[in-house]
Amino acid sequence: MGAGIPASVRELDEKDPLREFRARFALPPGVIYLDGNSLGALPVRTASRLAEVIAKEWGQGLIRSWNDHDWVGAARRVGDKIAPLIGADAGEVVVADSTSVNLFKLLIAAAAARPRRKIILSEAGNFPTDLYVAQGIAALLPGLSLRAVGTDGIWDAIGEDVAVVLLTHVHYKTGHKHDMARITRRAHESGALVIWDLSHSIGAVEIDLGAAGADLAVGCGYKYLNGGPGAPAFVYVARRLQKDLQSPITGWFGHAAPFDFAKTYQPASDISQFLSGTPSVLGLMALEVGVDLLAAAPREALFQKSRALCSLFIELIDSSCPGLEVVTSRDPKARGSHVSLRHKDGYPIVQALIAQGVIGDFRAPDIMRFGFAPLYLSYAEVFQAAAALRDVLATRKWDDDRFRKRARVT
Amino acid sequence: MGAGIPASVRELDEKDPLREFRARFALPPGVIYLDGNSLGALPVRTASRLAEVIAKEWGQGLIRSWNDHDWVGAARRVGDKIAPLIGADAGEVVVADSTSVNLFKLLIAAAAARPRRKIILSEAGNFPTDLYVAQGIAALLPGLSLRAVGTDGIWDAIGEDVAVVLLTHVHYKTGHKHDMARITRRAHESGALVIWDLSHSIGAVEIDLGAAGADLAVGCGYKYLNGGPGAPAFVYVARRLQKDLQSPITGWFGHAAPFDFAKTYQPASDISQFLSGTPSVLGLMALEVGVDLLAAAPREALFQKSRALCSLFIELIDSSCPGLEVVTSRDPKARGSHVSLRHKDGYPIVQALIAQGVIGDFRAPDIMRFGFAPLYLSYAEVFQAAAALRDVLATRKWDDDRFRKRARVT
Repeated sequence: MGAGIPASVRELDEKDPLREFRARFALPPGVIYLDGNSLGALPVRTASRLAEVIAKEWGQGLIRSWNDHDWVGAARRVGDKIAPLIGADAGEVVVADSTSVNLFKLLIAAAAARPRRKIILSEAGNFPTDLYVAQGIAALLPGLSLRAVGTDGIWDAIGEDVAVVLLTHVHYKTGHKHDMARITRRAHESGALVIWDLSHSIGAVEIDLGAAGADLAVGCGYKYLNGGPGAPAFVYVARRLQKDLQSPITGWFGHAAPFDFAKTYQPASDISQFLSGTPSVLGLMALEVGVDLLAAAPREALFQKSRALCSLFIELIDSSCPGLEVVTSRDPKARGSHVSLRHKDGYPIVQALIAQGVIGDFRAPDIMRFGFAPLYLSYAEVFQAAAALRDVLATRKWDDDRFRKRARVT
Repeated sequence: MGAGIPASVRELDEKDPLREFRARFALPPGVIYLDGNSLGALPVRTASRLAEVIAKEWGQGLIRSWNDHDWVGAARRVGDKIAPLIGADAGEVVVADSTSVNLFKLLIAAAAARPRRKIILSEAGNFPTDLYVAQGIAALLPGLSLRAVGTDGIWDAIGEDVAVVLLTHVHYKTGHKHDMARITRRAHESGALVIWDLSHSIGAVEIDLGAAGADLAVGCGYKYLNGGPGAPAFVYVARRLQKDLQSPITGWFGHAAPFDFAKTYQPASDISQFLSGTPSVLGLMALEVGVDLLAAAPREALFQKSRALCSLFIELIDSSCPGLEVVTSRDPKARGSHVSLRHKDGYPIVQALIAQGVIGDFRAPDIMRFGFAPLYLSYAEVFQAAAALRDVLATRKWDDDRFRKRARVT
């Protein structure tokens, strides 16, 4: 597939300080994978690490491995490794449950910390689970309600009735990135807390929760963290809030001393309070491999490459696919690490691309998404993907019944 | 270790209809594993199955495997495989989250279905996370409270103010088994719902939720189901209740059509409603291997062997360790699949046994637990374990400082 790649693009790859990371992923031949924003690629080391956890730690060590292989400390250990990726300190992040369950915990804890305020403010069009979880809480706790406003209306909607602002840092559909520091400041001036959902930004986009004065965050482990399908998620609670906020799901791993088997729940005084049930050991160990890989990459190079891959793709689409609307911002500071294009036949177009080995995805009604994971993608692949898209459009390859059949998961 | 095993014990193993299952587990040499009630042993097939899921399904299939390898259907598929183990029908069980999180969902859903009743009734000394989760809900939802009474007081405490009775079928510490059908009948007569925590019984003890007219249940995947450390848990909701009960954690996988990305939460009309976030695929696939193994075993033989292993152990303890109090019932119908012995020096005694390769565990203040997983244990191992315990006691091998040092996880 290397033919036809311009020298300027080849040069970008040659000078890429991250180019050695590609070999640490087990990507299939013949595939250009632009869906790492949905499910990250498999690190080479994950297979051997999980084989070791299964055969040696579980199979041979059995119950003893909770101590001998520190399974009991894994949720905190991996949390501490995630912390520097998001500008948090050690002890402010723990790996637990799913993003949805963590959102549930933090929304309730945040609303309880602002008892006179009755609004959960979010963005209409936020990732569905964020809105769904908030809707469920509003149905559960009388008086609380969800107010979802358009992106442009968020600023003005942060009023004195708002207990907590819930925003996804990078929008799953448009790729729009919120100004975390500015919105956090505005919310604090009005007396509200903010929860940032980092699912679509962690591992690809600069995040500095500390500098932004952020309160709370959640995020998923299976996108740019490359933790595997359904990887456990994480919770961030700023240290200054840890004593005041209480998780509503008071499972035994959130207890101050789980193995005392005491009768009465006594929450841990630190971030461990946001654990609930027994953590998924296999999931944690797979996630740790992905996080270790990211931690080994120079961070500024990672974020710079994410911006450059997206810019190159937009530039190529602008010049070669003039019929496509680029939904994502052209300003690298205002976007995440995926680019969304609008086309009324987006679904079959994405399927036709997948049939050629260029994997992106589709979000109804008309958005094609292409994610650019800086750790394992090359500039040459971006060029080839844009060329494939141009070809699919020019030859109407997508206009075929086999590409219109909807799969269960899109 | 085979010397000295009586012919009568050898004969039990020779006639054991489950004897071929032992080879399907990767147990370490030199170990007699009597802690399968805490963490089940590793099935041989788990390593190759997970290697396949990782390398082929995740690594090569990438995002496509949600459809191509039916990741999206796995939570329901494994739930349907669990159903016959507990007397449930297909469509009544789904695998999701942890036991603690599932208890949280069901307790809130059950209390909401009995709005004029304000009591969650449970057993003092129930497994801590069950009590902790109920305590957290009582703190969250004004008016609700937890009433925890002694085992003998449960029957009389089921009054007209009780919304939901929460009991663990087999007690984690004593091994006592509740009469599920009898208590369920009593609760229904009084108008309450019942949640059964099956964590310490599923896979070793006969459970017939259907025959008992049971309402709701949860259970863990990492004990007798052999799903691995922190395996996902399951939820059972009787079909007749599925339309009326609502999970409070309304994550996107509980939506009627998750991949429509609709704005408003619309719960699935079936058991899928009790899913929340993206399920743990690695955890599900490991659990499925364990469940498949159990499903392949003749169930009556499984339960009969569990009773017989426990009876043999109690008999041997009675005759060779007269100083030990057998806490667990001598009536096989009134106990689960582990036997608890009381000794004030239980902790160092258990550590001394572990040092000899006989792995049980300890629960404060004075309980030694020995679990008998019928799928992979032999009668000869029960004999050897009892002999090792007799020896540790007779020679006071446990009376050594190295056995007194408390580990983080006991």
